[in-house]
Amino acid sequence: MANPYAALLNKVRENKPLVHHITNYVTVNDCANITLAIGASPVMADAVGEAADIAALARALVLNMGTLNERSIPSMIAAGKAANAKGIPVVFDPVGAGASKLRNDTAASITSELRLSVIRGNISEIKFVAGLSARTKGVDASDSDIAGADSAGQTARALARKLGCVVVISGAIDTISDGAKIILVENGHPMLGNLTGTGCMCSSLIGSFCGAAPEEPLAAAAAAMMCMGIAGELAYENAGQRGNGSFRAALHDAVSRMDAATLEKLARYHEA
Amino acid sequence: MANPYAALLNKVRENKPLVHHITNYVTVNDCANITLAIGASPVMADAVGEAADIAALARALVLNMGTLNERSIPSMIAAGKAANAKGIPVVFDPVGAGASKLRNDTAASITSELRLSVIRGNISEIKFVAGLSARTKGVDASDSDIAGADSAGQTARALARKLGCVVVISGAIDTISDGAKIILVENGHPMLGNLTGTGCMCSSLIGSFCGAAPEEPLAAAAAAMMCMGIAGELAYENAGQRGNGSFRAALHDAVSRMDAATLEKLARYHEA
Amino acid sequence: MANPYAALLNKVRENKPLVHHITNYVTVNDCANITLAIGASPVMADAVGEAADIAALARALVLNMGTLNERSIPSMIAAGKAANAKGIPVVFDPVGAGASKLRNDTAASITSELRLSVIRGNISEIKFVAGLSARTKGVDASDSDIAGADSAGQTARALARKLGCVVVISGAIDTISDGAKIILVENGHPMLGNLTGTGCMCSSLIGSFCGAAPEEPLAAAAAAMMCMGIAGELAYENAGQRGNGSFRAALHDAVSRMDAATLEKLARYHEA
Repeated sequence: MANPYAALLNKVRENKPLVHHITNYVTVNDCANITLAIGASPVMADAVGEAADIAALARALVLNMGTLNERSIPSMIAAGKAANAKGIPVVFDPVGAGASKLRNDTAASITSELRLSVIRGNISEIKFVAGLSARTKGVDASDSDIAGADSAGQTARALARKLGCVVVISGAIDTISDGAKIILVENGHPMLGNLTGTGCMCSSLIGSFCGAAPEEPLAAAAAAMMCMGIAGELAYENAGQRGNGSFRAALHDAVSRMDAATLEKLARYHEA
Repeated sequence: MANPYAALLNKVRENKPLVHHITNYVTVNDCANITLAIGASPVMADAVGEAADIAALARALVLNMGTLNERSIPSMIAAGKAANAKGIPVVFDPVGAGASKLRNDTAASITSELRLSVIRGNISEIKFVAGLSARTKGVDASDSDIAGADSAGQTARALARKLGCVVVISGAIDTISDGAKIILVENGHPMLGNLTGTGCMCSSLIGSFCGAAPEEPLAAAAAAMMCMGIAGELAYENAGQRGNGSFRAALHDAVSRMDAATLEKLARYHEA
Repeated sequence: MANPYAALLNKVRENKPLVHHITNYVTVNDCANITLAIGASPVMADAVGEAADIAALARALVLNMGTLNERSIPSMIAAGKAANAKGIPVVFDPVGAGASKLRNDTAASITSELRLSVIRGNISEIKFVAGLSARTKGVDASDSDIAGADSAGQTARALARKLGCVVVISGAIDTISDGAKIILVENGHPMLGNLTGTGCMCSSLIGSFCGAAPEEPLAAAAAAMMCMGIAGELAYENAGQRGNGSFRAALHDAVSRMDAATLEKLARYHEA
């Protein structure tokens, strides 16, 4: 049976959606380059004086709170409202939710004031946003949360229902739910955890797919996670033995060369 | 006949000019590394409390409005005025001009309050700055503007005359004018458009060449565009088939290994 | 005799210390990736509303003033005080000290208001912080300071005594002193100077080692400088001929593959 997600990749490549990011300065270059690699067009703009203008030009908006500050928070809200007003999908990446009051308050504002299409984080971040206990260690998932990740499907589904959006929990297995279905994506490689920004890049890919298929956020999120996971596997094969720097270049190589046939052949997923 | 631009490359390598950048946080690392690769020395500093001090130490100033904000705009003006007062060349990259009122107003301030040596952008950005109609799509040139690019030479020359500076329009063919001459540089490769920051890096190279040859902004801009174009061609040959990540590393490789002989051998340009 | 520094590398890999950075937006991605490559865990957070919260979660704090601004200065002080209160080592990288009043004032605030574990810079930056004459050229060491670097050991020891911390002067030979001992590390390659951020990355590595061995800042700093120097040598062997982009990837490769045996075999150092 044909992989129903592969067709979405062609849609991204054909439509080249403009994806507006308000994101962190650590991984922003990786986010821009991965957006180009998948075939979409990135624009990064976070000044409150233009955030709404730019969001209204875009086909998707990605809000990533990796290096949050007093200046970017109102820009995120303004851009999100502009996107909501025009029906443009909003993807939220609650980096480090649980690690500081500023991040917790911002995650609360974004989830309550904006209508989100997809929220993506690691198990600690998503449990925090879902109001479950989480033991955050900086911006990485805590070991105790990872150990309890067999409940990821339930967590994702519950939060998806609560917020009325698709929830993605990244991990060794990625868990994706729209509140009804749960899709588990098995692609990926542990070496992805050795690079900064692989989570942020997943959110950029989700934004790219949502921009091309705004009516299908569940499928868009799943396709994006498959692309990143497969790219991680290919990058490991091609360059993993050489080390982190070569693996990183190979990861960008693999996303830029991804095509529907590769996605169809290598994707490993099932519904829970 | 010897390529008169190759000698300028040796000047950059000998003089190692300090190039002050106030630029965006998306591609700033690429800008710093490409400045080093061509043989100049980058310094990035955007606090209003030091922008003028740093500009006065430098041999060239690059103002790039890729991720403009309320804090960086007055810094750009202050640094530009300090550079003007000391006769240091100022290069302006109006990223995304036309995409928001904030960018439009800032481009207007910079072009009216500062004396620029070179302004470089894509056809949409330059048409907007020139007061011609432009249909901007985020930070990339619009398709309709690209289709009408046969008039790039006229646009560049008219804006160069209006602002009294050199104008560079980047594209499949780069168009460079000082208001009298028009130089067309044919080097380059479409894959450069698959990476973020190749335009910003061109502006950094122009700043590097202007720092070494402040009296020759037309030749400096042309030499910089040739270096980037040739590097794109060599990077494609060496690594293009592997994908975007390898192409990016190969691009930096090629700029760092560029020498006068390579520039002389591979440059393809003519005057219109 | 066994290299006493190699064991520290295993400690970093075992403890995976969380290293909080308030750093510049030019090289922040390299800093995050090199922190991961050595086996620690980076978190970048500079909002004044969370700087102290994040610092208190961390095992080390790195303050780097590469792109200082009015917003980040109070965050650095707040994070530093939180780290001091909890006994967490603070590493200070006075990028561009001497180049502007803003940087000079900030370096003075940080060295007077905070208790530092390690301060690392080039000879010009350290001479400036030490109150000796320095002729700064942007963010790179000046030629006259390099020519006088035979006195680096005395400068490092004097500043270490004055501030009660370990001082590292990066250069062709790295000089490290705690005010009593002086360790000279001979590893490294000139090509490291062709990339932006190699100094910043050294500071991130020092933070990573200090996070794993907070009681041994002298040994931690020396081990970090050895790792970077050896990685530079290996990267040059593997990719230096290809150019700057390949050398950069190879540098990250080499740090990620560094192990105690390699460190023990290739480290070249002696006490002065």
